[in-house]
Amino acid sequence: MERLPGFRDFYPEPLPHQDVWSADARQYIFEKWRAIARRYGFREYDGPPLEPLELFTTKSGAEIVGQLYNFMDKGERAVSLRPEMTPTLARMVAAHERNYKKPIKWFAIPQLFRYERQQKGRLREHFQFNADLIGETDPAADAELIALLIDTLRAFGLTAEDFVIRLSSRNAWHDFFKHGGGDTAHEYDFFQVIDKLERSAPEESEKKLSAMGFSVAQVNEFITSGKPTAELQSILDNLAARGLKDFVKIDYQVIRGLAYYTGVVFEAFDRKGEFRAIAGGGRYNNLVKLISGGKVDLPALGFGMGDVVLLEILKARGLLPKFDSPMDVYVLIEDEALRPDSLKLIHELRAAGYAVEYPLTPTKSDKQFKRAQELKVARTARLENDSYVRIRNLKTREEIVTGIAGAANHLG
Amino acid sequence: MERLPGFRDFYPEPLPHQDVWSADARQYIFEKWRAIARRYGFREYDGPPLEPLELFTTKSGAEIVGQLYNFMDKGERAVSLRPEMTPTLARMVAAHERNYKKPIKWFAIPQLFRYERQQKGRLREHFQFNADLIGETDPAADAELIALLIDTLRAFGLTAEDFVIRLSSRNAWHDFFKHGGGDTAHEYDFFQVIDKLERSAPEESEKKLSAMGFSVAQVNEFITSGKPTAELQSILDNLAARGLKDFVKIDYQVIRGLAYYTGVVFEAFDRKGEFRAIAGGGRYNNLVKLISGGKVDLPALGFGMGDVVLLEILKARGLLPKFDSPMDVYVLIEDEALRPDSLKLIHELRAAGYAVEYPLTPTKSDKQFKRAQELKVARTARLENDSYVRIRNLKTREEIVTGIAGAANHLG
Repeated sequence: MERLPGFRDFYPEPLPHQDVWSADARQYIFEKWRAIARRYGFREYDGPPLEPLELFTTKSGAEIVGQLYNFMDKGERAVSLRPEMTPTLARMVAAHERNYKKPIKWFAIPQLFRYERQQKGRLREHFQFNADLIGETDPAADAELIALLIDTLRAFGLTAEDFVIRLSSRNAWHDFFKHGGGDTAHEYDFFQVIDKLERSAPEESEKKLSAMGFSVAQVNEFITSGKPTAELQSILDNLAARGLKDFVKIDYQVIRGLAYYTGVVFEAFDRKGEFRAIAGGGRYNNLVKLISGGKVDLPALGFGMGDVVLLEILKARGLLPKFDSPMDVYVLIEDEALRPDSLKLIHELRAAGYAVEYPLTPTKSDKQFKRAQELKVARTARLENDSYVRIRNLKTREEIVTGIAGAANHLG
Repeated sequence: MERLPGFRDFYPEPLPHQDVWSADARQYIFEKWRAIARRYGFREYDGPPLEPLELFTTKSGAEIVGQLYNFMDKGERAVSLRPEMTPTLARMVAAHERNYKKPIKWFAIPQLFRYERQQKGRLREHFQFNADLIGETDPAADAELIALLIDTLRAFGLTAEDFVIRLSSRNAWHDFFKHGGGDTAHEYDFFQVIDKLERSAPEESEKKLSAMGFSVAQVNEFITSGKPTAELQSILDNLAARGLKDFVKIDYQVIRGLAYYTGVVFEAFDRKGEFRAIAGGGRYNNLVKLISGGKVDLPALGFGMGDVVLLEILKARGLLPKFDSPMDVYVLIEDEALRPDSLKLIHELRAAGYAVEYPLTPTKSDKQFKRAQELKVARTARLENDSYVRIRNLKTREEIVTGIAGAANHLG
């Protein structure tokens, strides 16, 4: 029986096949995400992987349904596996924001699901690091969030030569559109053309833009100018004060596809341009109000960073560590009469916090020693009799003999 | 907009409502599960939360569908959210077992889903610690797994006075049934009656048992005798050698409902009997063969421990720690001219591994200090000028003044 197409199995290392992902690699990434988020004062939250379909259509319109894992449950509810975390966050914040000081700084590591037509190697699920800052309009909040994004990528060993944050703003494009005489009713259509500019045929973009009173040349000139607005300059200055200037550049080509962004937007890319975006985010000042039906109105911004592209880049740059199983001690049982005392020793070593392995059943000495080596244990331990144990450091070859009861103290 | 009934939101502490669960409590539990599993040499794995429906019906029969979150996906595949982890494990092991030494010792912490008719407070999802040992028939494997179960519960502060493992065996019941003249074709029906004995009316059980040639009195006598089989005695001896005798007792009342168990079965209960089972498991020696269509035949056993009952017990016993947000330093910014240098300091402290918070925007001194106290930081740091920083230990009230560059070294 096979798993569903587009889904992943996470095996322990060593990997039986060629996939980058393993449970160990995943855990390595999750721990880094958690550690850096906490340094920045972000707190963890999570919501259900299954939500009312309405939560996602309210935010993104009915057209999103085509990309969702949605269905009717047995209670006749229209439900969907979550394709993104932000609507759930907005729902949760709207329900209990009074219990939390502003700004709220929260992160989550949800698994997300999209039912897109299957493309070669394209996944239908991934894990995403989501960090959001809620209740602050000042660009200092944008800078704090972008600094977290940069430091998260740096924690994996990536440098300013590996990646860059392309920083932009819908406000800048809004001004451009307005000053060029654009009709407000078509502003989001205009944003969509900009979003697709890099991937579309020039004639097609030209056609769409001229219908709105603009030209590709005009748009490209604005992009090339790359002149930061006051808001973006304030973010750049803030990041420069932290010593992060080299990790960010203004790039108005970035505008983000989703309808709900309201101000600053940004994406993280590898400098060589080999991979899809590593992360993306921006301001969504109206979403909490929308989701709460007008009850709670809080400005917000956030980003999402998926595990798939990140893993590919880390692998390509040789930045994934080896995930050896970290066993500390292998207890050799060569005399079966000493098995009960050996079990006692094993239990005491584990109680002291050590990772301990041993032969479950009677096993030849050489096979036991081979297993100890495979497990890359630091030490072996073998009972001399019912009172004493011989501990051998496999690296230094030093041996000591000590009482069973205090053996754990001799493993430092 | 509300979340779906039977699903949980996980907020950071402090909790805005009365639920036991928070993202912090969940993380606390997950970390303990991981830590103890690793001491026992178990490696982490995971599979997709969505699987082909057939994976679950193959194992448990078509009647399980009534309890599943199953649906047709957009590619006309019958799929289901996973109600348990064992079928996925069997599928994964069957696919790549040759890459792993036996016995395979793996654990996972999946979220599981069941669509049961909504009862008061009954959840439709929970997280479950699954530990399985594959490729070993000897009762030493059963003892190793049960020892892991016991030590996991002990890691939360629970003692032999709080909980007990009720140990039983389908082999013992098989012998009882066979010696009593039972018809092999009805053996599983017989097991079902035993499983429901505690919860059923005596007349009902009597009626069903007598149809198979048995009586409630006869069955109760066997349960009361509690005489361990040789296999169970070997497990008891093994656990006694580890000093875990007081955590386990023979109890033939336990037989487990699921069809696929083949030998030893067990459940962990609180001694006071206030809660549902904390954990349960047993041997399923035929399942890998069944799931792999006969290709791979490996004996196996495992247990599952849910987060919901565990959390309730820990709360009832006062064993849940306080989950204060663990911030190390609050950087006070009292002179806005020093904000850029303060940002530099903040960034350096974070880079050194400290959790640092600060006022994002200009804020009155007293409000900043209040916030620092709310965050229970160990220290505040305030720039004296563009070169020096004053660090104050809030507990000892000691202060030092040091250069910005080396400030992180003075926080030990």
